[in-house]
This record gives sequence, C-alpha cells and structure tokens, in this order.
Amino acid sequence: MRVGVIGATGAVGKELVEVLAKRRFPVTELCLFASTRSAGTKQKTPWGEITIEAYSLEAARNLDLALLAVSGDFAKAHARALAEAGVAVVDNSSAFRLEQDVPLVVPEVNAAAIGNHRLIANPNCTTAILVVALEPLRQAFGLRRVIVSTYQAASGAGAEGMAELERETRRVLLEGGPAGHEVFAHPLAFNVIPQIDSFQPNAYTREEMKVAWESRKIMGLPDLLISCTAVRIPTFRVHAEAVTIETERPVTPEAARAVLAKAAGVKVVDDPAAQLYPMPITATGQDDVEAGRIRANPVFGDCGLDLFLCGDQLLKGAALNAVQIAERLRLAG
Amino acid sequence: MRVGVIGATGAVGKELVEVLAKRRFPVTELCLFASTRSAGTKQKTPWGEITIEAYSLEAARNLDLALLAVSGDFAKAHARALAEAGVAVVDNSSAFRLEQDVPLVVPEVNAAAIGNHRLIANPNCTTAILVVALEPLRQAFGLRRVIVSTYQAASGAGAEGMAELERETRRVLLEGGPAGHEVFAHPLAFNVIPQIDSFQPNAYTREEMKVAWESRKIMGLPDLLISCTAVRIPTFRVHAEAVTIETERPVTPEAARAVLAKAAGVKVVDDPAAQLYPMPITATGQDDVEAGRIRANPVFGDCGLDLFLCGDQLLKGAALNAVQIAERLRLAG
Repeated sequence: MRVGVIGATGAVGKELVEVLAKRRFPVTELCLFASTRSAGTKQKTPWGEITIEAYSLEAARNLDLALLAVSGDFAKAHARALAEAGVAVVDNSSAFRLEQDVPLVVPEVNAAAIGNHRLIANPNCTTAILVVALEPLRQAFGLRRVIVSTYQAASGAGAEGMAELERETRRVLLEGGPAGHEVFAHPLAFNVIPQIDSFQPNAYTREEMKVAWESRKIMGLPDLLISCTAVRIPTFRVHAEAVTIETERPVTPEAARAVLAKAAGVKVVDDPAAQLYPMPITATGQDDVEAGRIRANPVFGDCGLDLFLCGDQLLKGAALNAVQIAERLRLAG
Repeated sequence: MRVGVIGATGAVGKELVEVLAKRRFPVTELCLFASTRSAGTKQKTPWGEITIEAYSLEAARNLDLALLAVSGDFAKAHARALAEAGVAVVDNSSAFRLEQDVPLVVPEVNAAAIGNHRLIANPNCTTAILVVALEPLRQAFGLRRVIVSTYQAASGAGAEGMAELERETRRVLLEGGPAGHEVFAHPLAFNVIPQIDSFQPNAYTREEMKVAWESRKIMGLPDLLISCTAVRIPTFRVHAEAVTIETERPVTPEAARAVLAKAAGVKVVDDPAAQLYPMPITATGQDDVEAGRIRANPVFGDCGLDLFLCGDQLLKGAALNAVQIAERLRLAG
C-alpha cells in the first residue's frame, strides 16, 4: 500500500510514521509531504531515509492512503480533491469533522460509520480520549449528562508548543525571569491557561465546543447534555480529563469498573490503596486510555459517576486513532 | 496586641507574618514559634529580627492572639488548652473544622459565626477560594448542585512541596532524568497527580471531601449536593478551580457577573476578547479570588453556570483568611 503522511514534520506527523511501523501497517511505499520550507530535507523512518516532498495533488494522487496532519485550512483546500482522485484520506484537522457527508470516527465506538467513505475525519484529541471511555458506559447505563474538565498538555499545540514549554520553563528556573510565550496566549510555564482555541459567541472556546459537538456525532447522541472546560497546563504529553456523568439507569463504581475493564482501548488503573490512578507519566506512549478514580458521585443520586482519564493525545488522541481508521478502511476496501 | 504565629517557619507561617504587616494588624509584640529544631534561629520580620521559640503553653499563654499554621495533630494537642488559657486562636489545620462547637469561617460568607468563640477554624484552601465566589451566587440564584475540578499548586504541600517541584523540574530539564518525589505521592514535574491527601472509603480523597464538608458548614447548607475532583499540577502557587453549578432559579452569565463584581473578596477577570481570565500568574500575591470564564452551561437548562476561579492559596486560602478572622475577633472582643 502506498501511504502518504501529509504534514510529516509536525508532532502528529512524526507520530503517524511511528504508529504505522509499530502496528505493522502494510506500507509498500511511504511518502512524506510537508511545507515547501521542509521540502528536500530527509527524515529517518523505519522504511529508510525519506526525502520530504512539497505537497501537490499530482505528487499525491497515486497514493492508496493519505494521512493528513495539517491545518484545517490546508485540509479544506486539498482533502476533498485528493479523495475524489481515489485516495483514501484520513484527516486529523477539524475541517470536516462536522460535515454531514464525512464520518467522524473512533473505531472502538463507531467503526461502522466508515462504510465506503473515502474521506474520514479524525476527532479532536480530547474527544477521542473521552468517548472511548464514555461509549461503553453509555451502552451499559445510558448517559444523561456529561461534565468534563480537562488538563491538556503542551503537545496539543504541536512540537512548537512542547518546545516553548521546555524553553520557557528553563528561563524561569535558570534565569529567574518571567516566562515568555509565542505559541500560547500566555506563558504556560508553571501556569494554567483556561483557553484553548478561540472563543465562541456562547463564551465557550472552540476546543470546549468540539468536545460537545464531536462527542454527540461520534456516539450518535445529538441531544446529549455535555459541557467542557478546556485548560492548558504545563505538561508535555497526555491529556487528563476529570469527568462527571449522570447515567440514565443506576450505576455503581464496581459495575462501571467491570464495564471499562472489558472495553477496547481502555485500561482501568484504579487502585487507590496502591496509589494507582491515571497520570500523564504512566499514560505517555500508551495506546490505551487510562481510566481510574472511579467513584459514585452523590450529586446525581444513584446515577452519578466520577472518573479520571489520561490519554496520550498524540496516540489515541491523534496518530493511533487515524491509523486505526485506516486499518478499517483497508478491511472495508 | 501580643500576637503569636505558631509554625512560623513554614510557607503559611511566613505568609501570616507578611499579611499581618500588610494589613497593619495592631501588633504590639510578635512571637514566633516553631519546632524545637528551628528554635533559637532568627527570622527577619517587619517588626525586626525575632528569635524563634519552641512552643509551650507557658510561653504562649500571655498572647492575645495565636495564629496556628501547624499540623492537625499539633493543633489537636494544643489549641484547646491555649484557647482555654484565654488566648484567641485561629487554627489553619483541619483538626477542628468539623467540630460542632468550633466555627469554620470565611469572613465574607459567615463572619457572624465567630460570635464570642475563642477558637476558630480556618478552612481548607480550596474551600475558602470556592465559597467566596459561591456564596454571592447562592444568595442571588440559590444553589442546587456544585461540581468542582481543581488545579492545585505545589504550595498546597508547603514550602517542601514547592522546593521539590523546582528541584525535580530542574532534574528533568538539565539531566534528562526522571523526576523524583518525596513530598508528593508521585513525581509532580510535568505530571498531574489526581490524589491530594488520603483516600476515604467512598473513593474520594480527604481533600475532595473537605471541599464538600467544609463548604456545606460555612455556607450553612448541610444538604448541598457538591462534589470535587482534586488534582495536583506542576504550578508553584495559586489553586485554580473549574466550577459547574446548577442554581435553583434561572441564571444568566450577565447576572452572575454583576453579582460577582459586587462581591467582597472576588475580582471578576472575564474578558475573552482580550484573552483575560483567571490564571495563576495573575492571581499570585493577590488578596482577591479571580473569577472568570463565566458562561451559561446548557447541561442544566437555564439554571446552569460555569466559572473558573484562581485564588492564592497561601493568602485567601490560608494566611489572609486567618488574619481576616482575627480582625473580626478583635472587633468582637
């Protein structure tokens, strides 16, 4: 299979190449595309050193599969043309996620939505990590309300975000100076920024609304009552999420734990006595989303449940989910 | 007034001395007490250099006011005897907070509870920051449900916590090695730890239950439906809190903002267009709790409200609130 990674020099693009190799995706030829700035440079991959090309439809139309890790604007400009040229496209941007004719897929939840589509949208990282745990709970107990607060890592802003956090943390510790910022709206080192993406008219950010909009679409629950507070914190990788749900039918922590223990893509890490619970340092590099701190929340009577999730947003939140979609495309096609 | 700070060498103890000076508390003589290990050492204060004494009832019984920034065990062993000796005692530990005969006070909320009591409990830092914003909303709209997720700084674990975060962050950045930990249950540098204090039988931590128990007592709402997820993150100072409430009567963001703008102890920082919202870097060293990201949460119909709080937990969350209580004691006595 001729596979192209578009946006190969970014954090997600590099992770896509790693995941393709790790999952032994049947790549016969790997093509890497990036901006003209990076074109001509070489990148080491498990398929040897590959020269990065500037993207053009002509250069990409012979691919069987294109994995897009590019901006929404770039995806809007090029993804449909590529799909129409016969290439299966999995787009990691937000460009098509809410388009009616484009499936938005987390394979553990709604693989069937892929059908014969040639353009599939990969969800927002926070959403992918959330729904992989929510869906099995929904199946078992129903879902009435979902309230999420996130603890999102710098890598959500790409390699530049991680570099800025490292550089500015050094500046604070070594020079004692105030942290600077270019990628983030404010200094992130030893700070918390309750804004990810732009503000909407309803005073939620786009990131917060993506969690609501995309979760509803993926789970097929257009009326689900769900809200999010999305917060950037000074970690490098892995998004954490504090989740409170009200179920339709009574739920107990034991029953929820049993359901999640059997759920694909979820690893229950929930042993308070041993101080085991989801954390970025343990979830980093892991395919599965860690779920723990599972407890009955009396705010919703016997239908209340709290849980804490940690997922590597470069993996389940991006590259892994994209390749999982591609695996289903292959099976389908 | 002869004032003693017991536990003067800790993060809160030092802050107490600063706050006494900043608020021009009528100190005629300042006595500093700490463990025998620190006794004999000198500490610079706005009242000159003071030699730290080992605590004894004999040495402290001539005080008019004792501010305790010590462990719960120490407070349990000594606070009642000190109050019975005629000293007004404000205790920062959790030892007496839920005792029926001891008022638990945030002056903006329940100053009247002080009455003629000589032993007053200062609440948990997260609780103090929360209720100063919740109470005016309760008065205006009523409160049915409260769901809180916290972003708590290393200083909640005292000066040792801050030192560990700094040291281990350096280790990660300069040596590339894994972060260590002694104060915290796990490495905190570039990580998130969803455990503060010990686990209770209901799988919530004590910190989480303190927020519920203490908020109910301070606000006089014994049946309030309130839950918390308490999370330690790698910041030095200031606790942030993502708060979702269901009110009893319909609420709008505009009405809530107007109420909070007039509330004592709260500063509304809520201008998304200018990227202004509460953050640790702006709330550090500030007396007022910053409140922002105020928005209607449709999960609770027209009774839902989200807000984000940042409060300096060494100030409103500890030293400032204790001195504010002492100011009322002085007026009362």
